[in-house]
Amino acid sequence: MSLLIVGSVALDSIETSGGSVEEALGGSALYFSWAASFLNPVKVVGVVGDDYPMDALDNLSKRGVDMSGIERLPGESFRWAGRYSPDFNHRETLDTRLGVFADFNPKVPESYRDSKYVFLGNIQPELQLNVLDQVQDPDLVVCDTMNFWIDGNRDALLEVLGRTDVLMVNDSEAIQLSGHSNVYRAANWILQQGPRTAVIKQGAFGAFLVDDNRIFYVPALPIEEVVDPTGAGDSFAGGFMAHVARTNDLSHETLRQAMVYGAIMGGFAVEQFSVGRFGEIGLEDVKDRVVRFADLMRFEIDD
Amino acid sequence: MSLLIVGSVALDSIETSGGSVEEALGGSALYFSWAASFLNPVKVVGVVGDDYPMDALDNLSKRGVDMSGIERLPGESFRWAGRYSPDFNHRETLDTRLGVFADFNPKVPESYRDSKYVFLGNIQPELQLNVLDQVQDPDLVVCDTMNFWIDGNRDALLEVLGRTDVLMVNDSEAIQLSGHSNVYRAANWILQQGPRTAVIKQGAFGAFLVDDNRIFYVPALPIEEVVDPTGAGDSFAGGFMAHVARTNDLSHETLRQAMVYGAIMGGFAVEQFSVGRFGEIGLEDVKDRVVRFADLMRFEIDD
Repeated sequence: MSLLIVGSVALDSIETSGGSVEEALGGSALYFSWAASFLNPVKVVGVVGDDYPMDALDNLSKRGVDMSGIERLPGESFRWAGRYSPDFNHRETLDTRLGVFADFNPKVPESYRDSKYVFLGNIQPELQLNVLDQVQDPDLVVCDTMNFWIDGNRDALLEVLGRTDVLMVNDSEAIQLSGHSNVYRAANWILQQGPRTAVIKQGAFGAFLVDDNRIFYVPALPIEEVVDPTGAGDSFAGGFMAHVARTNDLSHETLRQAMVYGAIMGGFAVEQFSVGRFGEIGLEDVKDRVVRFADLMRFEIDD
Repeated sequence: MSLLIVGSVALDSIETSGGSVEEALGGSALYFSWAASFLNPVKVVGVVGDDYPMDALDNLSKRGVDMSGIERLPGESFRWAGRYSPDFNHRETLDTRLGVFADFNPKVPESYRDSKYVFLGNIQPELQLNVLDQVQDPDLVVCDTMNFWIDGNRDALLEVLGRTDVLMVNDSEAIQLSGHSNVYRAANWILQQGPRTAVIKQGAFGAFLVDDNRIFYVPALPIEEVVDPTGAGDSFAGGFMAHVARTNDLSHETLRQAMVYGAIMGGFAVEQFSVGRFGEIGLEDVKDRVVRFADLMRFEIDD
């Protein structure tokens, strides 16, 4: 089924103890689309400047990602530069230049408006509302956000939550948003604001899903050599939503499966700089990891 | 089968944002024994001063915990005082008085020496070696340690590892011991030092087990109201080893089950101050949590 993502398209410059990249493809919409494209077609809404290397997006087009909703405006593309600590537990932002993204005003093309699965990437809550006003009758709205909006645009964010089915955030964001220091209390608080499901990501530890009295926990696949954690969360979202969209099923059991696909895509994302790893793998690699996740989590106790 | 624990018996004074206790039962041997006692008898080697409230241990005796190996010496018992941050992510030691524990010289009673399952609690590595010299022919030796010994008694600790089947430590300890900042690399390093299995605990995120090319991950059971995290790791060890001892089976499948029992006991431990929660529950509560863990980790993907 049709899957829409609204988010950032950026150029990332990243330093780690193991290497660096300059102006590599980045942004939530790109990570999401790459990850999702293994399972389901994707329609993207975003904005870039007239300096964006559009040729570099050809690979995505070939994979069924519709980028006709990426607006190209005069000016600079969104650029972000950051550096990770050797253990990847800390990230320092070295530079943020919003460029044309500063005035991002998402326009959902006519051909996208009947999308049944909608992912609202981490953008200003007012813009997320604006997107929801433009889509006709989605079956599932999943929303991401960040500390900046939780602090500064709380009312609009709560309005978004009232129109959201699944809030998908990091544990620290859930804690900040809810005011509960316990992450499970935070998740239950979220369920009282509108979403029927909360997905809480915990970085290298995995993620859990909470809906009506049920919890599912998926660990992260053990990775001995993390290269670049950027985009892991958006890749998680891409795997999650693409599985739900392709099955066109919103049952709790399908959401459990979607969590596993999310964890798989988040894992691939960190194995190379930028979206590099996605260019190296195929559906068979994804299926191999399903088997590895099953083995990672399997136990039997009869008594 | 016979299960031996050598560890500390202490009196803990603990402050959290939710309350406090003074001189409550504590120490690795007590948490371990309480947790294990639901599944298998336990024999304890430890030391207390002549001020220790021995009556308070009657409950444990009644549960099949043999405390004839707890030496009672003139002097003060081991006392520890600490305070947790409101989110329980940080712990500050307010006071440590080793008392008679400073000169702990574990003596394994004759009746304990044929124990088949041996847990070396977090004590000086030289004493752990001393214990191993006193037991006859154990089927499984599991060892804990801490930053203090990793720093100061590294050679002796490596000698212990050479005689250990399972090293069970926190992720930060595995990282410190191995010099690898990636926790999975750290685990594989541990496997090269002697142990055939590494169990890495990750606090509220759960724990994983690594042996020859296989990894099993168990999350922590979601707990909305943590009261006191003290002793969670030792309770985990108690659940883990008691399950292995009662099944008397060292297969990988049994170790997976043992991880789940470990996580269950670690979860109970944090729900009250000291060992309080263990006094409130029975085997049925343990079995209920097995079912909850199965549901927490369950997914099915066919394609």
